Amino acid sequence: MSSLPPDRLDLRTRLFQIVFESDTRLAKGFDILLITLILLSVAVVMLDSVASLRQHYGSWFYALEWGFTLLFSVELAVRLYCLDRPLRYLKSFYGMIDVLSILPTWLSLLIPGAQSLLVVRILRVLRLFRVLRLVEFLGEGNILLQSLRRSARKILLFLATVLMLVTIFGSLIYLIEPPEAGFTSIPKALYWAIVTLTTVGYGDITPITPFGQFISALVMVMGYAILAVPTGVFSAEMMRSIREERYSDEACPGCGQEGHERDARYCRRCGTWLDEETQDPRRQRDANGETGPG
Amino acid sequence: MSSLPPDRLDLRTRLFQIVFESDTRLAKGFDILLITLILLSVAVVMLDSVASLRQHYGSWFYALEWGFTLLFSVELAVRLYCLDRPLRYLKSFYGMIDVLSILPTWLSLLIPGAQSLLVVRILRVLRLFRVLRLVEFLGEGNILLQSLRRSARKILLFLATVLMLVTIFGSLIYLIEPPEAGFTSIPKALYWAIVTLTTVGYGDITPITPFGQFISALVMVMGYAILAVPTGVFSAEMMRSIREERYSDEACPGCGQEGHERDARYCRRCGTWLDEETQDPRRQRDANGETGPG
Amino acid sequence: MSSLPPDRLDLRTRLFQIVFESDTRLAKGFDILLITLILLSVAVVMLDSVASLRQHYGSWFYALEWGFTLLFSVELAVRLYCLDRPLRYLKSFYGMIDVLSILPTWLSLLIPGAQSLLVVRILRVLRLFRVLRLVEFLGEGNILLQSLRRSARKILLFLATVLMLVTIFGSLIYLIEPPEAGFTSIPKALYWAIVTLTTVGYGDITPITPFGQFISALVMVMGYAILAVPTGVFSAEMMRSIREERYSDEACPGCGQEGHERDARYCRRCGTWLDEETQDPRRQRDANGETGPG
Amino acid sequence: MSSLPPDRLDLRTRLFQIVFESDTRLAKGFDILLITLILLSVAVVMLDSVASLRQHYGSWFYALEWGFTLLFSVELAVRLYCLDRPLRYLKSFYGMIDVLSILPTWLSLLIPGAQSLLVVRILRVLRLFRVLRLVEFLGEGNILLQSLRRSARKILLFLATVLMLVTIFGSLIYLIEPPEAGFTSIPKALYWAIVTLTTVGYGDITPITPFGQFISALVMVMGYAILAVPTGVFSAEMMRSIREERYSDEACPGCGQEGHERDARYCRRCGTWLDEETQDPRRQRDANGETGPG
Repeated sequence: MSSLPPDRLDLRTRLFQIVFESDTRLAKGFDILLITLILLSVAVVMLDSVASLRQHYGSWFYALEWGFTLLFSVELAVRLYCLDRPLRYLKSFYGMIDVLSILPTWLSLLIPGAQSLLVVRILRVLRLFRVLRLVEFLGEGNILLQSLRRSARKILLFLATVLMLVTIFGSLIYLIEPPEAGFTSIPKALYWAIVTLTTVGYGDITPITPFGQFISALVMVMGYAILAVPTGVFSAEMMRSIREERYSDEACPGCGQEGHERDARYCRRCGTWLDEETQDPRRQRDANGETGPG
Repeated sequence: MSSLPPDRLDLRTRLFQIVFESDTRLAKGFDILLITLILLSVAVVMLDSVASLRQHYGSWFYALEWGFTLLFSVELAVRLYCLDRPLRYLKSFYGMIDVLSILPTWLSLLIPGAQSLLVVRILRVLRLFRVLRLVEFLGEGNILLQSLRRSARKILLFLATVLMLVTIFGSLIYLIEPPEAGFTSIPKALYWAIVTLTTVGYGDITPITPFGQFISALVMVMGYAILAVPTGVFSAEMMRSIREERYSDEACPGCGQEGHERDARYCRRCGTWLDEETQDPRRQRDANGETGPG
Repeated sequence: MSSLPPDRLDLRTRLFQIVFESDTRLAKGFDILLITLILLSVAVVMLDSVASLRQHYGSWFYALEWGFTLLFSVELAVRLYCLDRPLRYLKSFYGMIDVLSILPTWLSLLIPGAQSLLVVRILRVLRLFRVLRLVEFLGEGNILLQSLRRSARKILLFLATVLMLVTIFGSLIYLIEPPEAGFTSIPKALYWAIVTLTTVGYGDITPITPFGQFISALVMVMGYAILAVPTGVFSAEMMRSIREERYSDEACPGCGQEGHERDARYCRRCGTWLDEETQDPRRQRDANGETGPG
Repeated sequence: MSSLPPDRLDLRTRLFQIVFESDTRLAKGFDILLITLILLSVAVVMLDSVASLRQHYGSWFYALEWGFTLLFSVELAVRLYCLDRPLRYLKSFYGMIDVLSILPTWLSLLIPGAQSLLVVRILRVLRLFRVLRLVEFLGEGNILLQSLRRSARKILLFLATVLMLVTIFGSLIYLIEPPEAGFTSIPKALYWAIVTLTTVGYGDITPITPFGQFISALVMVMGYAILAVPTGVFSAEMMRSIREERYSDEACPGCGQEGHERDARYCRRCGTWLDEETQDPRRQRDANGETGPG
């Protein structure tokens, strides 16, 4: 909120605090109301896509849709009103989602059929991420995110290997199997390889020659066994994150080094006695004329 | 059993101890008999649903069904008799299951066809949870439950993310694929997305356009890789529970060393007697002029 | 080999050492030959089951089959010859497998068609377990087995829970779905529930009503998430087993307590100095008139 | 580069550094160019296999294919030119891949149709492994590889067990199920067993008898539960590798405390200077009459 000076606690500032922040009670209420509205509007879009329901309740859905569109339009207007640089918000990720979720209904006044694009409103569920982040699971989410960030490169390396395996085994099966089996092109064979390696196994394309089935079995066993890799990587990083909670938050009074284990009594970098409330036993012994350790 | 004074060891109290508790030999025998009867009655309901078996052994099943209904009715009557507040039990979870499992047979005397509801008797297997909890796996189950409770919030956060992915990719495939592929409504597309992301892969609805297959492949790889998250979370919490069970929290009074195993009596670093409330037997022997061990 | 006195190093004893033990070079050679023969005979049985191969190479397979039968018969005769209680071996697990694997061919001389039972020879692969145990992966296998034994009860508890979920959701889907969907009996619905919960997903029976598909989605997400439980349990036990390798094998010279951590200097049970090659610093200080720690 | 004396920094040496090494900026640029070309050529081969695309852009693909063939031929020529023993390279793994990826196009001049072998060019993606190894994920990959190497024997033992289970249950289902269900030979039944145990579940062959479905359910639950084994093994080894990377192996010279973090200079228990080869800066300052930290 650096764009607003702290003394301008006028309507715009108050609206900003309600609409964009989550500290006050009113702001939290607004967040919950918004989540509910988003979920309801998503539910209406979903139900409207079921032919039998549309036939019976089509007019209700139509009315609700306009209701949600008006509410979200007002919300967007308020958001833009209380910002100093509304255009920058419109160009941001969440701004674009906000616009896209109301545009189809308004466009349908001009162009008949534009309403069929209404399904993009579902993208608004993405906003839930942002709201979730603010309210509840903060501590838990942090550990998860930290572990994910640490595993990311290892898991990407794993996915790159998976992609190479998919390319090679997909091309192989394309050469082996006759086109009648459904392997009509390499991209299709790659699709089959992913379906098989990830152990999804739709069964829409399956090998029919014995050699093709042998290769399939290889891919399956591979996919079954290498699942251990991302899981093991993430488990290990998760363990590390949980264990690091074991580490003290206090910095060394001598050199400021952080991240000492909870049982540490001396700073591992400068050797300073960490527990300021008691006396360093080494100092005592030094005072008694004894030689210190080391 | 706070509702019964300890001196009223009459028939009701004794029945209570047999039917509701699991300490005495008689009570354990009753539990095992009950488990056997529940499993048998569930088996009869299952076999009765197989058309060919029903044709041949239908009358046997009918007789057995009445036998089980009578036994379970007697059991319920005993349970209600030995409680001070029988109505409260009837409103409890297990009470309702007890009633629901005998009701259909009795109702069939009044209303023909009510027996088809007999399948609810299967819910009685839920009682097994309660019995299992009491008998055997106590220690093991505790560690499992503790780890589950600790992982719960993280896994819920994960499931919320999964649900958002399912919503977004389900809607996307609904837009991409023609209705002939089976994606006739968004809820159906969500069903497909769950089938795919969880790597189940029925194959009852599969994408047919190249772009749809590309999106599918994305969802599969995602589902394959993010399985690491709940597994990693639970593994890490399981590790923590096992470790905590093993090590004592107390530090050595001599040198401050922590992480002693629970059966340790002397510090493994400085040899100090760890249990401050009792006397070190080694000291005693030294005082008596004996030589210490080692 | 307690049934044979050590001085009778005659032919029977020597044969026993070759056929039943694995210490000498000859015995290891025999094991490898046996594994090769078992694998070859299994391969012949497999290839013989392929109609097109049988048509062309049927007579070869027939000859090979008799060859293997004769070899295995000789092997069995030798085994029985060098044992003091041959009947007891015949009644053992491996003895019965040995008999069952040669019986069908011999029976086919008396009863035409008995050869179709030849497939039981495949059970001989079970013997590989025994051979594997003896030769190579000893250390690795021990850690695996120890971890499995420790996880066993927790994983059984998990499987019992899975079975209850399968029973309840299987019965539920049986009530919801029309028989046309393939849920013709509760056992079939349980089969479907297992196919779904384990994320196998054949797709031979799939729900067709929206509510049935919703229940399916629940079962899938459940199966996807609870896979974390056996994996987490086993990971944690595996970690523990690997870490315990960290523990010293030496017993305390004072009280015999085993399983000290490698950095332990004093026995955690009796406080004895563990490193016999150096002097206990506590003793030294005691000798100097100082008081020991604690 | 032992085959070239260091003073011959002529054209061949410079080319060698660019083509075979990755230290200099030019060499890195060459690597990136090569990766791009390989990916593009693989993409062309893939798109060319799609019938509809081939019809429209066939001549483009043909031109591009010749372009890539010429470029890769020049690259191979350069590689051979700057090596002292070019034949040895041609016989190596990557050399053979290089030859195989250009041969089909050249052969098509002599033999019509040889171009259909062009798909082997896809094997060139294997070279990506080598390039990946050189550039970025070095540290990450090392931990992954070390953990994989340590898990390898345990996971092989696991796969051997899986193979035995597959053999036994595959043969069993072959005996139980009628040939109409698709189990026409034991190899096909083994294929089914792998499809089921790895939870892929194509559904192209499924059991139809109740007993066969029971056996299937067994195999599924088995496959679902034993997935825990490779995952647990790899998780535990991953944990170990991560921990070992973090902690130093050396003990404190003062008190023997082990498990110091790699950046530790003072023991966290007794404050002793850990690096015995250099002087403790604290001591020095003390000697100079300064006050130590803390």
